[in-house]
Amino acid sequence: MKAYSEMSKEELLKEKKSLEEAYKEYQKRGLKLNMARGKPSLEQVNLSLEMLTDVNPDTDMIVEDNVDVRNYGVIDGIYGAKQVIASMAKSEADHVIVFGNSSLNVMFDTVARGMIEGIQGNAPWYDCKDRKWLCPVPGYDRHFAITEHFGFEMINIPMNEDGPDMDMVEDLVSKDPSIKGIWCVPKYSNPGGVVYSEEVVKRFANLSPAAPDFRIFWDNAYAIHDLYEEVHLPDIFGYAITKGKQDMIFEFVSTSKVSFPGSGIAGIIASDNNLNEIRKSMAVQTIGHDKINQLRHAIFFANGAKLRAHMKKHADIIRPKFEVVEKVLGEELQHLDVGHFGVPKGGYFITYTTQPGCATRVVQLAKEAGMVLTGAGAPFPYKKDPEDSTIRIAPTYPTLEEIKVAAELFALCVRLATAEKFLEK
Amino acid sequence: MKAYSEMSKEELLKEKKSLEEAYKEYQKRGLKLNMARGKPSLEQVNLSLEMLTDVNPDTDMIVEDNVDVRNYGVIDGIYGAKQVIASMAKSEADHVIVFGNSSLNVMFDTVARGMIEGIQGNAPWYDCKDRKWLCPVPGYDRHFAITEHFGFEMINIPMNEDGPDMDMVEDLVSKDPSIKGIWCVPKYSNPGGVVYSEEVVKRFANLSPAAPDFRIFWDNAYAIHDLYEEVHLPDIFGYAITKGKQDMIFEFVSTSKVSFPGSGIAGIIASDNNLNEIRKSMAVQTIGHDKINQLRHAIFFANGAKLRAHMKKHADIIRPKFEVVEKVLGEELQHLDVGHFGVPKGGYFITYTTQPGCATRVVQLAKEAGMVLTGAGAPFPYKKDPEDSTIRIAPTYPTLEEIKVAAELFALCVRLATAEKFLEK
Repeated sequence: MKAYSEMSKEELLKEKKSLEEAYKEYQKRGLKLNMARGKPSLEQVNLSLEMLTDVNPDTDMIVEDNVDVRNYGVIDGIYGAKQVIASMAKSEADHVIVFGNSSLNVMFDTVARGMIEGIQGNAPWYDCKDRKWLCPVPGYDRHFAITEHFGFEMINIPMNEDGPDMDMVEDLVSKDPSIKGIWCVPKYSNPGGVVYSEEVVKRFANLSPAAPDFRIFWDNAYAIHDLYEEVHLPDIFGYAITKGKQDMIFEFVSTSKVSFPGSGIAGIIASDNNLNEIRKSMAVQTIGHDKINQLRHAIFFANGAKLRAHMKKHADIIRPKFEVVEKVLGEELQHLDVGHFGVPKGGYFITYTTQPGCATRVVQLAKEAGMVLTGAGAPFPYKKDPEDSTIRIAPTYPTLEEIKVAAELFALCVRLATAEKFLEK
Repeated sequence: MKAYSEMSKEELLKEKKSLEEAYKEYQKRGLKLNMARGKPSLEQVNLSLEMLTDVNPDTDMIVEDNVDVRNYGVIDGIYGAKQVIASMAKSEADHVIVFGNSSLNVMFDTVARGMIEGIQGNAPWYDCKDRKWLCPVPGYDRHFAITEHFGFEMINIPMNEDGPDMDMVEDLVSKDPSIKGIWCVPKYSNPGGVVYSEEVVKRFANLSPAAPDFRIFWDNAYAIHDLYEEVHLPDIFGYAITKGKQDMIFEFVSTSKVSFPGSGIAGIIASDNNLNEIRKSMAVQTIGHDKINQLRHAIFFANGAKLRAHMKKHADIIRPKFEVVEKVLGEELQHLDVGHFGVPKGGYFITYTTQPGCATRVVQLAKEAGMVLTGAGAPFPYKKDPEDSTIRIAPTYPTLEEIKVAAELFALCVRLATAEKFLEK
């Protein structure tokens, strides 16, 4: 079949009619598909079920240095849990604070601390009335929700194939002291699946921001979530330390997509200066996080040693799901000039980029045929996709059978929306 | 023996010399006692050990309305956990949000929300430069640390036998719109063990604060922690609702001293308006708290039904510890006019009130004989006890044998410090 861009109006009308008939057939099927949820499948969470019962109450309750996990104490996490988090981030346990179940909550609290207390002796961000935040796009909607919540003006930074546009990042942060931070998902970015290159990571580590309290929020959410071979993310702290810039970085990881979403552990990796400041504030906020759950993770993952083997099991479950989407989209769409998609080597998403102005329509068509997609615009600050062309596909949660149907229906919706758009011209 | 106040100088000198000799004998014993920690004993935390293994991963993972506790979802807690929290506070599950492991963290976050977002459409507290907070004293040091952290000027409110001085509370809050809240531990107050009377609770429920965003932080930390019969705390929400003032109250509870400190669940009880506002903010902060741990609590406590029986077991363990302290202090000190103490019917502390100016010296003497006491001043804002007379005794954690020795040493230190003080006059 011809590319849509090369079709005459008559050809497009004919194509559209044929697509509409096929679409009606889907509508008749009463489908209930959901490709919006970036969450592990049942099979995946069951990989960690043993964790729930393999802590022995009779023998395991006393850990390092006579810490009783049943009682109060230990503000920044038991050592075994620090090792799990450090192992995920290829760091050392001493550079880690372990928190509760949610890295999102840790990020929220980290911004809140900046807002009220200020960072390393600088004025609270609350007092910076034109505070701004850099947002590589497409990105993670919940990141943007946090900075919107705290009143930051969010500035879109385009993503390239090797990471954010660093010329733009360097230029902006060096000039504007009201820019206080940037969101980064440096490995398998949500939703583009981009891994930041050596060059990009080096340039991040060597930023010279006008704001002394500018911080890189390095959300390493998919640190060990490779679908194939392990992909190497360059070590931002290693580079930063050589320049004395390690205070500029907060790295976040969690086991939400390793053990249990909602019942995992989350951690921050940071410089001694930053960790000490956080501990001081934490000591007011809490007496400590859930050490028994930290212990479950330490035991199940053998203090981090068993993480990689565990993640291979995750990969084996979800790799076929990614591949079926890629196969269907490749076969159904690639020759039509209706858009393009990345083939991520890990993470939780595939991003499909339509012709400009088609994404909202694709999501609507899908919905009216029984398939929920992430809202068009969601991966952008204020939910505004300037091109209306980015769609996030989440293939991990449904079954393989559902995903095949979903991908076929998705391809149809893209074709129909594009034909409609081309006919408007 | 005569009361110290009736002794001549010679009699006091003789008494002091005799006490010093006894004190030296204690010093020689190389004691290591700790009466500072308001935490459950090993025997107590072991009451809940079964909770760690009685969730069946094969059969228990799907709860109400098809919620999978292994995966993301449910922002405000599973229903069974809400029932546990509601049962503690004699409320209803629909009035509850369940959080993570720490009610202190919930209180911190609640103040932080007031600081940055403002409460129910009012200006953020951050913008109120002379913001103030009422602090019934003696009180809980970690409460005061939160309001100090957020820059509130803290105003001491004297505690009477039936609760805070309500004339003073009513007068202050009705006049000053910069007073944004008050800390209350209404049942078995920390550290005085006071239970607020019907009259006091009614007056709280009927406050008419000048600040529309004034909030009562009703920390019901010892809601079900009776040592003897169940003591009734009047229902503040019941009274407030009749006046339409239910938005004025945030009630906090946790299972830290019911199941495991650090691995329990915490909850807030509030009006629909307040709960809705909190949920909105929570949705930015987290995807949800640990539902598996919530489920452990729901199962172990049979959705709250088994709480009272469980708390009787706690009481049986710690009641003798309170009683031995009370017996020793009664026998050793009551006839000497050196101070007085309350006999709490529940909670975690006994408060000893020395003659003015003696508390710091008692704590120092204890320390130099091998016994750690809570720092004098700790139960007051800015750690300043205006009378230097309040000492918090925490008898739950040590063994009964240790406590007997500790109480005897404590009595000796009080006598010696008081003799010294009287001789200065």
